[in-house]
Amino acid sequence: MIEGLNEYVQKSSTVWIREDGKDIKVKDWIIPVWEEQREDWDAVILGVPLSRSSISASAASEFPKAFRKAWELFTTYYFDEHVDFRDYKVGDLGDVKMHYTNILQCHDNIEHAMQHIQHNYPNSFYVSIGGDHSITAPLVRSIQSNNENKSIGIVQLDTHLDLRDLSQGPTNGTPIRQLVEGNVVKGENVYNIGLHGFYNAPSLIEAAHKHKVNMISLKQLRKKGIASVIHDVMEQLSNKVDIVYLTVDMDVLDITYAPGVPASTPGGMRTDELFDILFEMGKYPIVRAMDFVCIDPNRDNQVQSTVKATTYAFLTALASRYIHKMKK
Amino acid sequence: MIEGLNEYVQKSSTVWIREDGKDIKVKDWIIPVWEEQREDWDAVILGVPLSRSSISASAASEFPKAFRKAWELFTTYYFDEHVDFRDYKVGDLGDVKMHYTNILQCHDNIEHAMQHIQHNYPNSFYVSIGGDHSITAPLVRSIQSNNENKSIGIVQLDTHLDLRDLSQGPTNGTPIRQLVEGNVVKGENVYNIGLHGFYNAPSLIEAAHKHKVNMISLKQLRKKGIASVIHDVMEQLSNKVDIVYLTVDMDVLDITYAPGVPASTPGGMRTDELFDILFEMGKYPIVRAMDFVCIDPNRDNQVQSTVKATTYAFLTALASRYIHKMKK
Amino acid sequence: MIEGLNEYVQKSSTVWIREDGKDIKVKDWIIPVWEEQREDWDAVILGVPLSRSSISASAASEFPKAFRKAWELFTTYYFDEHVDFRDYKVGDLGDVKMHYTNILQCHDNIEHAMQHIQHNYPNSFYVSIGGDHSITAPLVRSIQSNNENKSIGIVQLDTHLDLRDLSQGPTNGTPIRQLVEGNVVKGENVYNIGLHGFYNAPSLIEAAHKHKVNMISLKQLRKKGIASVIHDVMEQLSNKVDIVYLTVDMDVLDITYAPGVPASTPGGMRTDELFDILFEMGKYPIVRAMDFVCIDPNRDNQVQSTVKATTYAFLTALASRYIHKMKK
Amino acid sequence: MIEGLNEYVQKSSTVWIREDGKDIKVKDWIIPVWEEQREDWDAVILGVPLSRSSISASAASEFPKAFRKAWELFTTYYFDEHVDFRDYKVGDLGDVKMHYTNILQCHDNIEHAMQHIQHNYPNSFYVSIGGDHSITAPLVRSIQSNNENKSIGIVQLDTHLDLRDLSQGPTNGTPIRQLVEGNVVKGENVYNIGLHGFYNAPSLIEAAHKHKVNMISLKQLRKKGIASVIHDVMEQLSNKVDIVYLTVDMDVLDITYAPGVPASTPGGMRTDELFDILFEMGKYPIVRAMDFVCIDPNRDNQVQSTVKATTYAFLTALASRYIHKMKK
Amino acid sequence: MIEGLNEYVQKSSTVWIREDGKDIKVKDWIIPVWEEQREDWDAVILGVPLSRSSISASAASEFPKAFRKAWELFTTYYFDEHVDFRDYKVGDLGDVKMHYTNILQCHDNIEHAMQHIQHNYPNSFYVSIGGDHSITAPLVRSIQSNNENKSIGIVQLDTHLDLRDLSQGPTNGTPIRQLVEGNVVKGENVYNIGLHGFYNAPSLIEAAHKHKVNMISLKQLRKKGIASVIHDVMEQLSNKVDIVYLTVDMDVLDITYAPGVPASTPGGMRTDELFDILFEMGKYPIVRAMDFVCIDPNRDNQVQSTVKATTYAFLTALASRYIHKMKK
Amino acid sequence: MIEGLNEYVQKSSTVWIREDGKDIKVKDWIIPVWEEQREDWDAVILGVPLSRSSISASAASEFPKAFRKAWELFTTYYFDEHVDFRDYKVGDLGDVKMHYTNILQCHDNIEHAMQHIQHNYPNSFYVSIGGDHSITAPLVRSIQSNNENKSIGIVQLDTHLDLRDLSQGPTNGTPIRQLVEGNVVKGENVYNIGLHGFYNAPSLIEAAHKHKVNMISLKQLRKKGIASVIHDVMEQLSNKVDIVYLTVDMDVLDITYAPGVPASTPGGMRTDELFDILFEMGKYPIVRAMDFVCIDPNRDNQVQSTVKATTYAFLTALASRYIHKMKK
Repeated sequence: MIEGLNEYVQKSSTVWIREDGKDIKVKDWIIPVWEEQREDWDAVILGVPLSRSSISASAASEFPKAFRKAWELFTTYYFDEHVDFRDYKVGDLGDVKMHYTNILQCHDNIEHAMQHIQHNYPNSFYVSIGGDHSITAPLVRSIQSNNENKSIGIVQLDTHLDLRDLSQGPTNGTPIRQLVEGNVVKGENVYNIGLHGFYNAPSLIEAAHKHKVNMISLKQLRKKGIASVIHDVMEQLSNKVDIVYLTVDMDVLDITYAPGVPASTPGGMRTDELFDILFEMGKYPIVRAMDFVCIDPNRDNQVQSTVKATTYAFLTALASRYIHKMKK
Repeated sequence: MIEGLNEYVQKSSTVWIREDGKDIKVKDWIIPVWEEQREDWDAVILGVPLSRSSISASAASEFPKAFRKAWELFTTYYFDEHVDFRDYKVGDLGDVKMHYTNILQCHDNIEHAMQHIQHNYPNSFYVSIGGDHSITAPLVRSIQSNNENKSIGIVQLDTHLDLRDLSQGPTNGTPIRQLVEGNVVKGENVYNIGLHGFYNAPSLIEAAHKHKVNMISLKQLRKKGIASVIHDVMEQLSNKVDIVYLTVDMDVLDITYAPGVPASTPGGMRTDELFDILFEMGKYPIVRAMDFVCIDPNRDNQVQSTVKATTYAFLTALASRYIHKMKK
Repeated sequence: MIEGLNEYVQKSSTVWIREDGKDIKVKDWIIPVWEEQREDWDAVILGVPLSRSSISASAASEFPKAFRKAWELFTTYYFDEHVDFRDYKVGDLGDVKMHYTNILQCHDNIEHAMQHIQHNYPNSFYVSIGGDHSITAPLVRSIQSNNENKSIGIVQLDTHLDLRDLSQGPTNGTPIRQLVEGNVVKGENVYNIGLHGFYNAPSLIEAAHKHKVNMISLKQLRKKGIASVIHDVMEQLSNKVDIVYLTVDMDVLDITYAPGVPASTPGGMRTDELFDILFEMGKYPIVRAMDFVCIDPNRDNQVQSTVKATTYAFLTALASRYIHKMKK
Repeated sequence: MIEGLNEYVQKSSTVWIREDGKDIKVKDWIIPVWEEQREDWDAVILGVPLSRSSISASAASEFPKAFRKAWELFTTYYFDEHVDFRDYKVGDLGDVKMHYTNILQCHDNIEHAMQHIQHNYPNSFYVSIGGDHSITAPLVRSIQSNNENKSIGIVQLDTHLDLRDLSQGPTNGTPIRQLVEGNVVKGENVYNIGLHGFYNAPSLIEAAHKHKVNMISLKQLRKKGIASVIHDVMEQLSNKVDIVYLTVDMDVLDITYAPGVPASTPGGMRTDELFDILFEMGKYPIVRAMDFVCIDPNRDNQVQSTVKATTYAFLTALASRYIHKMKK
Repeated sequence: MIEGLNEYVQKSSTVWIREDGKDIKVKDWIIPVWEEQREDWDAVILGVPLSRSSISASAASEFPKAFRKAWELFTTYYFDEHVDFRDYKVGDLGDVKMHYTNILQCHDNIEHAMQHIQHNYPNSFYVSIGGDHSITAPLVRSIQSNNENKSIGIVQLDTHLDLRDLSQGPTNGTPIRQLVEGNVVKGENVYNIGLHGFYNAPSLIEAAHKHKVNMISLKQLRKKGIASVIHDVMEQLSNKVDIVYLTVDMDVLDITYAPGVPASTPGGMRTDELFDILFEMGKYPIVRAMDFVCIDPNRDNQVQSTVKATTYAFLTALASRYIHKMKK
Repeated sequence: MIEGLNEYVQKSSTVWIREDGKDIKVKDWIIPVWEEQREDWDAVILGVPLSRSSISASAASEFPKAFRKAWELFTTYYFDEHVDFRDYKVGDLGDVKMHYTNILQCHDNIEHAMQHIQHNYPNSFYVSIGGDHSITAPLVRSIQSNNENKSIGIVQLDTHLDLRDLSQGPTNGTPIRQLVEGNVVKGENVYNIGLHGFYNAPSLIEAAHKHKVNMISLKQLRKKGIASVIHDVMEQLSNKVDIVYLTVDMDVLDITYAPGVPASTPGGMRTDELFDILFEMGKYPIVRAMDFVCIDPNRDNQVQSTVKATTYAFLTALASRYIHKMKK
């Protein structure tokens, strides 16, 4: 800054400032990969701003921007576990480039981007920020093709099965169908947790049964307990697959807690339950990638509670991974 | 449609379309009684768009319209119990005609309409969709007069006793007082569940004691458990009455879960608790009629969570009845 | 309805009811073409629910539904001109079928649908209800291909030139570029009215100059007067083309008057000015088709002022056509 | 207050405090009539919190409260005319008592209240604050019955004619019909200003013609000029009647300026036009009473622009009366 | 009121009316101390409308007004415990006078006001209604200086530690730091309950450890149970201090339950948990003062759920004190 | 970016990207002064995020951030005048550092910052972005002290006089009083344009008269015409002073056009009028500095129309200066 002016003026707020010193905010902790060259990122984050593939109109494409803006509200100290996880290194990869009208090309770009990312950061944890749920298919395909001789399982937190047929192309209603019928993931290696209510048509239930997708309702989850269910699911998966992909469709949450998700419903999960699930999942290094999808920040309430809840969930997942990595 | 055009154009969305095929939405499942003649409807639904009888200003009269519109968001498959209840036959009776300024005539219309409905569909389950809580008095009166030698009990889910005196005529604050003092229902056969907080004045408590209305607070419900409380209440009622009427004032819900109910308050019930109660109630065929009242869709939040929660509650009640009917 | 019940109950409100008698609402005046067979509709209305082609996220695809719902608020009597235009016959064609992910097929469907419509109703006035502005290109193409030896001009009410290049495919930013470069319409036969402010990049201005698109700013319109400008534009067009297509991008309106249009801006047109323009345009039978695009009802304010303003504009255009047809 | 405490603590804000000193707010200027006994109030204000008589659901009954609350935002100095009108004495009469369910009794109470008010304050200007438009009929009836040998005319600012038939009782759609058919006011002595658009059904236009109600459209008003139109109307009325009643249905305003009026529409009046009309009307002492109706504060936007605009209009009317009284 | 008018007209609603008779609302139960002279108020309430000391922009200064307005929605009967607590005498002291720009003087005024209040009402329970959390420091200082030889402990319900350093002066982030470093309260006598998530920077955790502030996370509270935790905390405090001050930063609540608190977050407490805590706290007469801070009514949702929840919490605390006082 | 990845991934959106090429957005045109060293900025922009000095609670301190974010919506081509003003060089100085609780120090920081800025950029046009109106006093003081032998005049667009006394310190109601009584600017050299309605108390009018402040009402402005009034004002000022400071309190706008300004009112200016005034002002190089104050983005409507209107006004002012500079 200009001589003498520094005392009274500071850089404007749209500029990315990394504060040094004792306390840092999440915005200072997550570093763009083009600013700090390193290959050993513990986790890398990829924005996937695509939602014109959503069945109903959605501005989930605006979420990566809203998500990054929310970083300024959070610190790197996780009170519940009394741990500062700033030493967990997280790089921001930027956003996948999207075409305005060619949706298939968008999906290709996602797949190629994840391919390059895996090559560049072979040991990182991959976090993708949607966008709508259609992005999960190319992301998982990319991970499969990069791990040719390995098998992949999916833990899906969702109110819906996402097993629609492909007659209308790949949408936010089809990713699991695409992966199962495309032989990328076996149906029996998919665990859908959080199903409830009146939102899955009989034909989708049939498809789930046909493909042997595992369905765990929210009621079952509550009855048996989160820690127990996650333990069982991950035990089973560990015996069957080499890699687990965790996909979080935020419509798994109750509409009261997640008004900003177009498909959220009454009767859904509470945020504290979601946070507990993500903490439990952090115990398993076999989980190699994760996404959060279907948050439309334009639809969120004025205080942006859905955007903030997603950020909280994201941090819980990373903090847990850090804690369990440190324990070893 | 016009020759050649059908391939590219479909009927506009305001028109009632019944889709055939495997998956149906609730909007396709509930059939206007003037479109399909049958006497054996399992349930019939009556819109009761009256709210100028509400003490405070309310647009609950707009709820039947909002409720029907929400039907397109729900399927007939109830995941929690793994059952498709489409074979439960539900007819839509339309709306009671209302007068703009003569509120007593509105109440008479409601009573007469229910009289005709009972004659036409003597074995159906009667579901009335308010409107405000004043509609419950004529509805119960009508059922009593149609069942001269039988006694009626009421299960009331409500934050309020609705035992106000009649000095201001029949409002949403008076239905239970009207029924008890009108000797339609004995106070001891009324079970009010969900009371809490600072919303019932001492004079109403006195009236409840005088008439021996049974009061079960939300705290008691939570302490004892929903299944247990409902079991006890229904056991007692089964020994005392021939018919049970279930009235759901949606202000029983916490304001966070039901912002669209003008009188909803902090400290109220969660939606999952309401759904559980309605599922339990579905076990008892003695329950012959049900209403949902006091939802103002104009006051609801942008994502219409209260409208959706009421629809969810309604479907839970019907699905449960279907399940327990099938079990026999 | 059921015997005896009719006195107290009426059909529910989601059902399409055509009231007979002296006063009719617009909802009763516009008749689905599958309900009343006739070839001599004065005007036919086509819903075009496509907005995944929009550059920024938009739910303009929801507008045809919101538009039809608003019909219940308007009568067929136009007070300003003291005329009841119910004898102007208007048919509702329904909505163009859309594919969820193949945007080009959506555009093809629009083009084919309009082709069939012109064949079936060769003398009608064609009104298309968007959707986003990308729909104008296939609509105009279809009209051109149906009128091989005739030339078409465009009157465009818009804050933007919509002359973006096609590198991202056909979006709501490209329709005029597509039509001009596709030799469907000559640039000199395009009159863009309402331009202002800081919303058109220099490259688009260059493109406009290159193609000789006529640009009339909002300031010029106000200075010269609406009647005078429209008269001049239509005089010029009448000398150059056989058919005029009128496209109304509602973002021409000031953001205060049209909060429901994602791209509306400060400094735009007032609604009374828009209504005056549409009244003037009604004098010219050479105008054979019209569209309204880019209204996102989910983004509109709580009182839906943008949806209502569009309906008002639409009715003004039709009433004016009726008046001027009657004058002959 | 308590000794020593006064220095640090002031009375809480819900308590009515009249500040003395140079500058006063409108809340300090308008004085409850039970606090200051005087018979020579220049104007008296009566709250009329009735809206269950509204055809569509409305909380206009909440407006008197919202209106009084807005008084704290305004001073008694009218900048446009450089005048402090605090010497114009205005008394607050409180609110008419309403019955919850007997709407006819509510109308009777209004009529009786105005009767007593005229007896007590025979020379004041009567300002009634609705409530919906149904209140105008009993108010004008009361004035007629108190002025037996005099004739009354009405200036009505409204988008609607309010000439509906009485088959549904007295609603906000019927007051002019009631007064004209009840021989309280001759149709030819009613001047409706501000009509426009598509909101009056042909049968109402017929009724207006039959009763010779004068209709001045918004377009005519703008073309001829406000001062000129008001001058002509008042000249005509002065030759025909002894007393003029001014009724302002705030739905005369454009929906952009008055989102809080359930029936406001696009194409309506701007607030500055309304203020000019009210200023002009202040020149005529023959205007003996005025009302403002149909403002629903619950429906207003977050910044309460409709409530504030009504208060501004009210003050303009009173300031103008003061100015023109002082000029004599 | 005027002769004859009383039958039809009642005092307007902005005027403070104390209704007599059987049922009273909280607004009638809490009495301004300048209206009823007594020294034995069980509790006195002080408005503290200061929020320009808030780090982020806040209109918490508007809360005392919104809080008093909400009193009309509550009765004095607490259903959960079946008790009418109207005999608990509560006086409204009005609001502390604030300076527009001198924040330190505002804090001085708060301290002096509380000093005078303690002198005048030495045996009352002191309830302060913020305002932001900066008000707690002068309030506790004032209580300490009035109880020279006694020691004070604090129970703090909060998502944050409020232990920021004073480099930016006394803000809503510093009160506990001020009190601990100012030797007003020992760190070990502060019990912060409800901490969770990612909202306390490491430097604040360090400060807490250094000063031995007791930190009880929301997870610990839930695991151990509210009654048990409060019992333990109060047992410990009873052995260490003479007076306990209870400060409730409403940001301890989940953002879903308290959208009107600028710093509320996901992962926070539910309202029913807060109410339970306050009920438990009512058992301990050693608690001599309480405050509620950081509620911004302008930021609250349309149905004002945060304002209502705070009022519910406040009443629960007072009702509990009454019940436990009566038990003795 | 990483090898191979660039094809599919772009930098994330929170990062400041300056696009090169033909079309630039305002965000690319305005350059942080710490990124491009130059002394000949045509204009420099200073964020002044202070609003705890506002009389009523305001988040105007958040406006600089919202303002910069809006830059991405505007290009550098001004259609109304057919000019691309990208060659007008504009530097972003960042934001003045503020203290959380010492408001006087905040005002000192503003004054010192502007002092340094004038020294560094002696020939630039100074644009300050508030914050509330209290910032104008230190800004003008700083300009005066830097131009010791020159006299300053003020053109103030405002609904209020801002001549309150200093008993409550320097607030958004006092800047003109401070400057006039501090002998920084003579009252006769202040021209307040846009006054109207009931918002200035008599004592302020008296102060204006005493200090000979020039008051031009909105009605006078409209009657005489904007170009004519601005011409007259600037002619007079040119004869009396050396430097003119233009201060735009956005509350001069009608509440319909500027809902995001806490003090905006009905009866105010339209945005097109404001834009015309700013265009006229651009003709006078004697205007050396400008500010925009009192916009609270948290209070703005969902589509941020007030934030966008301020940006439009700002660009109009700069474009006009560029045009008139080029003409010479």
